[in-house]
Amino acid sequence: MSEKKKIFALVSRSYTESILDSMKKIADFLEQAGYIVVYESQTAMNIPFDNVTPMNIEDIGTRAAAAIVIGGDGTMLGIARQLSPYTVPLMGINHGRLGFMTDIPLEQMLPVLEQMLQGKYVSETRFLIEGAIIREGEAIYQATAFNDIVICRGGGSGMIDLKVEVDGHFMYQQRSDGLIMSTPTGSTAYSLSAGGPMMHPNLGGIAIVSIAPHSLSNRPIIVPDTSEIVIELIEANQPSVNYDSQSFASLRLGDRIVVKRSSNTITFLHPQGWSYYDTLRNKLYWGETAVREKK
Amino acid sequence: MSEKKKIFALVSRSYTESILDSMKKIADFLEQAGYIVVYESQTAMNIPFDNVTPMNIEDIGTRAAAAIVIGGDGTMLGIARQLSPYTVPLMGINHGRLGFMTDIPLEQMLPVLEQMLQGKYVSETRFLIEGAIIREGEAIYQATAFNDIVICRGGGSGMIDLKVEVDGHFMYQQRSDGLIMSTPTGSTAYSLSAGGPMMHPNLGGIAIVSIAPHSLSNRPIIVPDTSEIVIELIEANQPSVNYDSQSFASLRLGDRIVVKRSSNTITFLHPQGWSYYDTLRNKLYWGETAVREKK
Amino acid sequence: MSEKKKIFALVSRSYTESILDSMKKIADFLEQAGYIVVYESQTAMNIPFDNVTPMNIEDIGTRAAAAIVIGGDGTMLGIARQLSPYTVPLMGINHGRLGFMTDIPLEQMLPVLEQMLQGKYVSETRFLIEGAIIREGEAIYQATAFNDIVICRGGGSGMIDLKVEVDGHFMYQQRSDGLIMSTPTGSTAYSLSAGGPMMHPNLGGIAIVSIAPHSLSNRPIIVPDTSEIVIELIEANQPSVNYDSQSFASLRLGDRIVVKRSSNTITFLHPQGWSYYDTLRNKLYWGETAVREKK
Amino acid sequence: MSEKKKIFALVSRSYTESILDSMKKIADFLEQAGYIVVYESQTAMNIPFDNVTPMNIEDIGTRAAAAIVIGGDGTMLGIARQLSPYTVPLMGINHGRLGFMTDIPLEQMLPVLEQMLQGKYVSETRFLIEGAIIREGEAIYQATAFNDIVICRGGGSGMIDLKVEVDGHFMYQQRSDGLIMSTPTGSTAYSLSAGGPMMHPNLGGIAIVSIAPHSLSNRPIIVPDTSEIVIELIEANQPSVNYDSQSFASLRLGDRIVVKRSSNTITFLHPQGWSYYDTLRNKLYWGETAVREKK
Repeated sequence: MSEKKKIFALVSRSYTESILDSMKKIADFLEQAGYIVVYESQTAMNIPFDNVTPMNIEDIGTRAAAAIVIGGDGTMLGIARQLSPYTVPLMGINHGRLGFMTDIPLEQMLPVLEQMLQGKYVSETRFLIEGAIIREGEAIYQATAFNDIVICRGGGSGMIDLKVEVDGHFMYQQRSDGLIMSTPTGSTAYSLSAGGPMMHPNLGGIAIVSIAPHSLSNRPIIVPDTSEIVIELIEANQPSVNYDSQSFASLRLGDRIVVKRSSNTITFLHPQGWSYYDTLRNKLYWGETAVREKK
Repeated sequence: MSEKKKIFALVSRSYTESILDSMKKIADFLEQAGYIVVYESQTAMNIPFDNVTPMNIEDIGTRAAAAIVIGGDGTMLGIARQLSPYTVPLMGINHGRLGFMTDIPLEQMLPVLEQMLQGKYVSETRFLIEGAIIREGEAIYQATAFNDIVICRGGGSGMIDLKVEVDGHFMYQQRSDGLIMSTPTGSTAYSLSAGGPMMHPNLGGIAIVSIAPHSLSNRPIIVPDTSEIVIELIEANQPSVNYDSQSFASLRLGDRIVVKRSSNTITFLHPQGWSYYDTLRNKLYWGETAVREKK
Repeated sequence: MSEKKKIFALVSRSYTESILDSMKKIADFLEQAGYIVVYESQTAMNIPFDNVTPMNIEDIGTRAAAAIVIGGDGTMLGIARQLSPYTVPLMGINHGRLGFMTDIPLEQMLPVLEQMLQGKYVSETRFLIEGAIIREGEAIYQATAFNDIVICRGGGSGMIDLKVEVDGHFMYQQRSDGLIMSTPTGSTAYSLSAGGPMMHPNLGGIAIVSIAPHSLSNRPIIVPDTSEIVIELIEANQPSVNYDSQSFASLRLGDRIVVKRSSNTITFLHPQGWSYYDTLRNKLYWGETAVREKK
Repeated sequence: MSEKKKIFALVSRSYTESILDSMKKIADFLEQAGYIVVYESQTAMNIPFDNVTPMNIEDIGTRAAAAIVIGGDGTMLGIARQLSPYTVPLMGINHGRLGFMTDIPLEQMLPVLEQMLQGKYVSETRFLIEGAIIREGEAIYQATAFNDIVICRGGGSGMIDLKVEVDGHFMYQQRSDGLIMSTPTGSTAYSLSAGGPMMHPNLGGIAIVSIAPHSLSNRPIIVPDTSEIVIELIEANQPSVNYDSQSFASLRLGDRIVVKRSSNTITFLHPQGWSYYDTLRNKLYWGETAVREKK
């Protein structure tokens, strides 16, 4: 067995008793099964275990068989973005209600892990998007997002006026509270709140969704993931660009934000039998909210 | 004829050549017809006419037969709110596309005014809402709104968590970008962008509309205008309360905003034959946007 | 005590063992408390009890203290419409998930009834709408609805083209799958599925909601309950008018449907402490469907 | 020049004076330029020209350089579906407002055609979907659709109860007025009316959109065009399956409809500089319907 197949990296971003307990059980289980267990550097600093081997993101990305994330979707989102330049796959042990990304149930984690170690898993690859901020012809900032890149107005009242071009073609100019560019992964997050559709993770599309648009005929639109979307800031008061909720706040009028698919991807390993539609149903209470009763 | 019947107050908030020209024509027309023309104090200071008689809001409110507003809906909104404690009716000369509130078309203003002076008009009364901010049991701020009172999150990313009670009954607690309480007048403004329904001005209802709510089963709800709506600020980053887009920005967690119908009302005088539905159709391009073509 | 105060009428439309059992318990409870129990005629014919006193709708309407409906909202809807010409109030014993109208929980029905007999209840009055079909100037059909009057296209593909006037004013002409006129009571039924807002039962408004409208700028609109809504059938294939889901199917092009508030109302008696908002939350799973998780 | 490059087939489905005039002008133009002009068989039978060479669909599909459709999007839709088994590209001369598919403006058709004959055009390929109806294990009907396949309830009131699986995974079972499976091309038709998003023609996705769903948490979902969608008819009154509005009406409970991408595609030739976003803006009045005015 190569080194790569032997190393598993454990990662978390919160350190409750329950999460530490899970982490310990997983570590013991993997070590007894003959694997090497390491802890992502930031995680390693925050846990009270003895004899912890820390490993940084780059090494995890290149040397580990998988990163096992213990926590919820928020934790997974951040780790996934950091590991996206590398090919290491991620697995998520869920500590709450079934997550969209952290989908190994806590109470069955050891038997499920055992199955997955035997190759019984579903592998799924998701893409990220990146957004560069161009001011007077130069890129002054660039970052990637796993869920969404959002351009929005500042606090208080007021609105934002944006001009949108796709692949060099003018699409529209319009006023709203903001504009969301969402990956399929992000389609169940902010985009959904703002009226966007759900997109299966395998869809090669980016959703462009206005938040509270002034125009009544505005509708969400899905463009191919090969598209280059350019948004120009026409008018706004204290606008910001948010990458997976991380704000870049010093935008100026005339700035252009160029959004496109990132060359990075993330691979998730799901338990065998995993279905995206099960997750949707579970998370969204589908089918349980009867409005019109039969008569 | 009593004094009240004789005085007309002209009001504007922008002073373009075209608006000044209209104002002059209206003034001449009214004076030739034997009426007294006065100018609202702030207007009087901004216009280059000779022999202008200024009058303050309170005097207009109690002594004028009507206030004639020259401009667009934004101008009307501000004036209407100021005059709402009084009973003087308002008329609006529109300087753009037909407005919701300023509905006397510029090009026909004199013949229409002549008709209206003869009693040929439609009178319509609209209500306002008021919102008090309660901190530790005391009202620290209070204001009225003609369109809407909006509680919203600050700039950047993040959300606001609000608990809503109506008439002492818990309605829901939920996370969103914000919450709009809209009068029928405001139902064609921000509320409509956020997914709220239109409400005829005579409807005795207040719309409660969430902006990008996290919960998929959230829907706009219309409560009677006798309702007292209490919103408690559970969690937020730099939230604000906006009264017709005027921000009160120093909210704190735990603050409660109490929204109810104001005792003030505004009366508009419309040209004879005026129909709210004509305005809707004109403003919203109803009936012109065919999606599914006949085959 | 007058005769009226002494008579309670039991009504149902399905006769499962569980419903019969509830009915028996209620009857025994009321008789032991000194009241007279009668059974609505159709109910009386379908239950296997001995010594049943039947009473027709008209007599219940004029002579009973209250009609107690055992079943779900569908059953209540039909009974309420029949009893709406009279003033007798209705109470509903719920046999499923908490209903919008049948809100006395099965498992607590006797203690709740006891409280209500002592005057501890919330009385709430709701209005109905009526719709007349006018052909060549004559009314060829008329009926009332408690939830909604719906004009819709026939089966298969195709659409319906309707012209809508309110109080003599042209509102719009448009193509869609159909048009819903809903009372506040009906606002949580079909209207909600089609994108209409919720309306508190005390709101004096009628919602006009298009089903899958061709025009992107169409939005639901709420008009005062004093409005007369006239819909003219411009084009359609096998259209029908449905009153609370009861179809009148032989419409012709050119027919006009005149919808307005009925002079009839229905009074519900709810258990003390009842809140419309509790029901909404319970029925619509409000607050439980978190989309955007905190990060 | 090969034969294929020389033959152009003219097609229409309505034969107004204006359309016949266009057709004549196009034929003259092409013949003078040295091309062979033929007329699709059904078209040939309906036009009063002399010396018309008819050609059937199969021959057009395999022998013509292009089919030139004169009419609107409805005409194009039908022809495109018929020609989809072949590789011949289509061009559309529009006789009304700019169409989504018929996008060569009438008044500039000859200069535009001249440009396109010189190779100055944008070629765009779109996919179709097909739907088989399976009864007791056997396919009893199959057809393709360019816009959408819709399963819907019959006329009158009532609803349809459908169970949906995607790629063997249960998605949801729910009650509604119907379910739309739409291609990107169909995303601006019925699907849009029912709340679905727009999809760029190059997107490899199929939208699944419920019509007036009972469940408040239902949302449109876009699945990859590699998906197999299976819908089972659980309950309904006179339901039908509509392929681009052509109804198959004798469905039975228990029938399963299997929808997937067809192996057929259609290639459109657009004038140089053509942009899908221009068409959207033009058709949907984007940017013209200001709701919230600036203040």
